[in-house]
Amino acid sequence: MPGVVTALDVAHRAGVSRSAVSRCFTAGASIAPDTRARILAAADALGYRPNALARSLITRRSGLIAVVLGQLDNPFYADLLARLAAALQTEGYRLLLFFASPQDAPDPLVGQILPYQVDGVVLAATSLTSGLADACAAAGIPVVLVNRTTDRPAVASVTSANREGGRLAARFLLAAGHRRLAYVAGAAGASTNRDRALGFAEVLQETGLVPPVQAEGHYTHAGAAAAARTLFGSPEPPDAVFCANDHMAVAVLDTARREFGLRIPNDLSVVGFDDAPHARWGAYALTTVEQPATAMVAVAVSLLVSQIEGRAVAMHQEAVGGALVVRETARRPATGIVCDGNREIWQPAS
Amino acid sequence: MPGVVTALDVAHRAGVSRSAVSRCFTAGASIAPDTRARILAAADALGYRPNALARSLITRRSGLIAVVLGQLDNPFYADLLARLAAALQTEGYRLLLFFASPQDAPDPLVGQILPYQVDGVVLAATSLTSGLADACAAAGIPVVLVNRTTDRPAVASVTSANREGGRLAARFLLAAGHRRLAYVAGAAGASTNRDRALGFAEVLQETGLVPPVQAEGHYTHAGAAAAARTLFGSPEPPDAVFCANDHMAVAVLDTARREFGLRIPNDLSVVGFDDAPHARWGAYALTTVEQPATAMVAVAVSLLVSQIEGRAVAMHQEAVGGALVVRETARRPATGIVCDGNREIWQPAS
Repeated sequence: MPGVVTALDVAHRAGVSRSAVSRCFTAGASIAPDTRARILAAADALGYRPNALARSLITRRSGLIAVVLGQLDNPFYADLLARLAAALQTEGYRLLLFFASPQDAPDPLVGQILPYQVDGVVLAATSLTSGLADACAAAGIPVVLVNRTTDRPAVASVTSANREGGRLAARFLLAAGHRRLAYVAGAAGASTNRDRALGFAEVLQETGLVPPVQAEGHYTHAGAAAAARTLFGSPEPPDAVFCANDHMAVAVLDTARREFGLRIPNDLSVVGFDDAPHARWGAYALTTVEQPATAMVAVAVSLLVSQIEGRAVAMHQEAVGGALVVRETARRPATGIVCDGNREIWQPAS
Repeated sequence: MPGVVTALDVAHRAGVSRSAVSRCFTAGASIAPDTRARILAAADALGYRPNALARSLITRRSGLIAVVLGQLDNPFYADLLARLAAALQTEGYRLLLFFASPQDAPDPLVGQILPYQVDGVVLAATSLTSGLADACAAAGIPVVLVNRTTDRPAVASVTSANREGGRLAARFLLAAGHRRLAYVAGAAGASTNRDRALGFAEVLQETGLVPPVQAEGHYTHAGAAAAARTLFGSPEPPDAVFCANDHMAVAVLDTARREFGLRIPNDLSVVGFDDAPHARWGAYALTTVEQPATAMVAVAVSLLVSQIEGRAVAMHQEAVGGALVVRETARRPATGIVCDGNREIWQPAS
């Protein structure tokens, strides 16, 4: 019976203290690598099975972090999840995964997450209402929003610099000579969509141009294809489209090429947002505003862990800036394109 | 203090028994929808927070299922994970997510998973050694392998019909008149790769043809691009390539078009395996052997839940057949292409 082996048995065999054994099996606890290796070998030899759940009743730490996502068909979120999992694993936490559909009231998820006494929650679903964040905050559970913000100052968040990204896209397309600009919008109510649209439109306004034509893509592939049909089938079609994410830009490019015979970028420039992995695939080679996923995940995990460990109570909204990555889907401005490692980015003079 | 509210308080307010409250918050327990709604409303009104972890010490059910993945940059696995999460959520389980790198010894993961007293484990990493499955089986934890098999008859698994899929790809390319065939292989040691290669090669052998040229793509994007360069740069390049998954087929197509100027399918036919979401994107429109993810997930969850509930002890290896979906990356055989809903598939006469 493995059950009769105790932490003390393991400690004796490994020649360490009982508390070292406990630290070895506790999320986030510090322990020297060689001590850890000795304990694991002893535990293995004895068939010791620590019970993290029983320990959590005493320590009030489950070692579990709930991660709530909206969709995974957008490769940006698959990439974000893989990075989050790696970062949390490094910090000694386990990832409890939940999906929230846009229609979901927050309450069912609250009922699923809270019973597991999670140490923290990462909300990375752009379309969620703020109810879940509020419920976690009310229960004293640290929360970090990723890729969305809320007006509530009591909730920490990390996003990319969405408004600045929207501005950058507009300036880039204007510098390339475009004047008939359109915006394929993401989910109404998502802060990412609001801020990208705002930055894009305000540059046009500052330049004395009319606001961009807008079509709703809802952050979905099918929605963006429908938006593209509306735009390209109109009497005055745009010659440049800024898409609120890469996932929609793919659908806009396919629709433009296959259904309207448009040549990219001769007839039409398309700029996305994310620099998701598929933006680099040759058939798309997308010009896009980068969301620096590595930096965003590092900030998110750091904000969460410092809350869990009581080092931070004041909440923090952080925006991480990304570059405009120049590939092949948009006309190139005459100036400002520079090499940055193995990619090209656009850096306007002012 | 929410802590002082007990399940009995909730039962009184909802007008139900204490055991109904317990069932309401227990994974997999049956309860009438309206009873459940009344209990959740009462729990919400009282601020009741059930402790799933404490309950698990009594019931020996944590409600947690560990899902172990190898990579998420392949959209097939992102799709599989989303479907798994939905199916497990429907069954009342929560998903604890782990990533295993191909190099990982199984032991570190075992040490991370077992302390959480998971009710079951889904292993969907093609490259894992069998050590993890063995360790779970030794600890009495039900395991299901998804998209891989093992020689051990004591472990349940679900795959698509990989060997038949490889055969189908070969017959399709031969029917279209190709004779210079190549295979871009997945990870050495993965059962999926072994079985797809076997089916593909044996049809050529039965037809009296030489074995296919093989290049190693390791199931990665970069690996497949390198394999394509080797194949297309050789003195006798193939005119048809079967790729062991869609993720690699994308890289082969991009390399063929962009680096070798090959027209698809005039100069080259490419067939993939998976029918992952991006196979449908217009710029790829990939002809591919389907892995029926919906059916595979349904079988996997059913095999796991019946083991957890003690309804099944005998182990079961199930293979789910998929169609050859005809899109635009391969030359079309003169006969056998039929409509199947909103797609075309190939059904050979015999």
